[in-house]
Amino acid sequence: MADHSGALMRISFQALEQLLAAIFVRHGVSEANATILAGNCAGCERDGSLSHGLFRIPGYISSLKSGWVDGKAVPDIEDVGAAFMRVDARNGFAQPALAAAMPHLVDKVVASGVAVVAIRDSHHFSALWPDLEPLARSGLVALTMVSGLACVAPPGGRSAVFGTNPIAFATPVAGAHPLIYDFATSAMSNGDLRLAARAGHDVPLGTGVNASGELTGDPKAILAGGALLPFGGHKGAALSLMVEVLASALTGGQFSSEVDFSNHPGAETPKTGQIVIVIDPARGGNKLFAERVAKLMGSVRDAGQPRLPSDRRYRTREASERDGISLQTDTYEYLVSLSH
Amino acid sequence: MADHSGALMRISFQALEQLLAAIFVRHGVSEANATILAGNCAGCERDGSLSHGLFRIPGYISSLKSGWVDGKAVPDIEDVGAAFMRVDARNGFAQPALAAAMPHLVDKVVASGVAVVAIRDSHHFSALWPDLEPLARSGLVALTMVSGLACVAPPGGRSAVFGTNPIAFATPVAGAHPLIYDFATSAMSNGDLRLAARAGHDVPLGTGVNASGELTGDPKAILAGGALLPFGGHKGAALSLMVEVLASALTGGQFSSEVDFSNHPGAETPKTGQIVIVIDPARGGNKLFAERVAKLMGSVRDAGQPRLPSDRRYRTREASERDGISLQTDTYEYLVSLSH
Repeated sequence: MADHSGALMRISFQALEQLLAAIFVRHGVSEANATILAGNCAGCERDGSLSHGLFRIPGYISSLKSGWVDGKAVPDIEDVGAAFMRVDARNGFAQPALAAAMPHLVDKVVASGVAVVAIRDSHHFSALWPDLEPLARSGLVALTMVSGLACVAPPGGRSAVFGTNPIAFATPVAGAHPLIYDFATSAMSNGDLRLAARAGHDVPLGTGVNASGELTGDPKAILAGGALLPFGGHKGAALSLMVEVLASALTGGQFSSEVDFSNHPGAETPKTGQIVIVIDPARGGNKLFAERVAKLMGSVRDAGQPRLPSDRRYRTREASERDGISLQTDTYEYLVSLSH
Repeated sequence: MADHSGALMRISFQALEQLLAAIFVRHGVSEANATILAGNCAGCERDGSLSHGLFRIPGYISSLKSGWVDGKAVPDIEDVGAAFMRVDARNGFAQPALAAAMPHLVDKVVASGVAVVAIRDSHHFSALWPDLEPLARSGLVALTMVSGLACVAPPGGRSAVFGTNPIAFATPVAGAHPLIYDFATSAMSNGDLRLAARAGHDVPLGTGVNASGELTGDPKAILAGGALLPFGGHKGAALSLMVEVLASALTGGQFSSEVDFSNHPGAETPKTGQIVIVIDPARGGNKLFAERVAKLMGSVRDAGQPRLPSDRRYRTREASERDGISLQTDTYEYLVSLSH
């Protein structure tokens, strides 16, 4: 998975998904979980979410090999109220845990107007938008947060206590793809930081501090004993704190600062928790909800914002579906070698 | 309410609350609504939330005199599901609308695990933290958002389309006051911008643009046909967009960009909507929730963050409760003159 300047090829989503599923199964993931993880990872690559696409495969494998995460885990769902579900991911990945809750979740939201899924002991190693897109396509509004691995220092602080703690939000839009934002509450995602370090690019000042607590533009210095910073100063830090409260304290998962895989060399996937809050906008009594959101997006574009969240992702998806997903042949051969 | 260098006096919370209630009643607010608004405004002043304290009184009065807001409105509550309430504020203030929903809200959260209150046709002219503090003191976790008056341009944009669109979040903390953050998704709140303009202070570059769309540090230029910017670039803008979706599109309220009080000279309070999402952390099955949050806050302080959200507010409250709320005698006399 190092940088190559080799020849490019195209692969269909289905072919990539099958190849990735074979890799996951080959490394100890159950068939059912492998299908979910492969669809997720291939979807990220297809949509240009590269920091959560194929780039993550070595980390998945390394974590599985270390014994830190259970690829065969069967999530345990507890129905604890008209609008509340708890899911014990049982040391497995978060996506199969959410998938197991999904049918009940939609039933609950439609019946009650809103529902919460609190997932704990789960490993989330991907983007959040794939978790929400199916909900928004069902006409629901959804918000999710996941805590991670401590790599973000609070503003004015000296040491890492927060994960990159992403937040994602999705809403239906009349006549268009759902609007989904998905961003790290750190100044940069860990994936992008690692991509910058690998490429030897500097990152903007304010992204993080070195091991001495000084601001630095060198991603390697941030990774080597330093820490990222929250985006937007104390406001971003407040959001990151909220993610720890909702995704860890409320679910019963570990805080980012409690993740300790020192006994599992090679482990990379943080075991924490995730919260998903889903609202039925029809219950708001506003039948024109999706039309209103479409109007809002029009106003924002008219005000001059050149690109809205998820615009680029859908454009990349369209191109990938038309032409196939662009891939270096070296990468393809590497993936094939992992699959058997 | 201009700047004075007059003598200072102290006033008790109760005395200030009574004085403010008399002012509200004198200007057409019902007794019941006046009690709520006065408690809210006096609480902001007591806690040092000065941009939402007495500073706002002229705006409340001006809006009431203009006929734009109905101080006597009786909110209409619709129970539309096990976990969902809609409130039509009927062109009144948002705080009485939420207060009317509060007993049912707590019942619903305790019964279902989570509940949503969708308030529309409401005027919110204060801070958000007072809306959430009682919920957190009841052991509940709460998130709220309110749309406002278009004064924030999207990143790269030329004209205002978002309100300052604040978000607030509250959680119980074992052995301590609730943790509550409350911030504008704009780079600065409108209240603080107006305070800076009045004081003749510059604001940091990046706070907003002038009427030509250029960055400026002059708060008067931002107020005179310019626009604020979101905090944190495209991430803050995504949050602001979410606030419009949840507080306006979902509730059935107006978007910030639709507020038009041109037919009501003197009107200042935006008529939009508000969403409140409340979760029962006990339903998460984690009986130690509040202890876990306390532990998290300890970790963040240990990591070196000198002040957590709401720390300063509680310290100011403590001083105000001990010594009385500090007030200029000129301001006091001005308030008394408004009350009869």
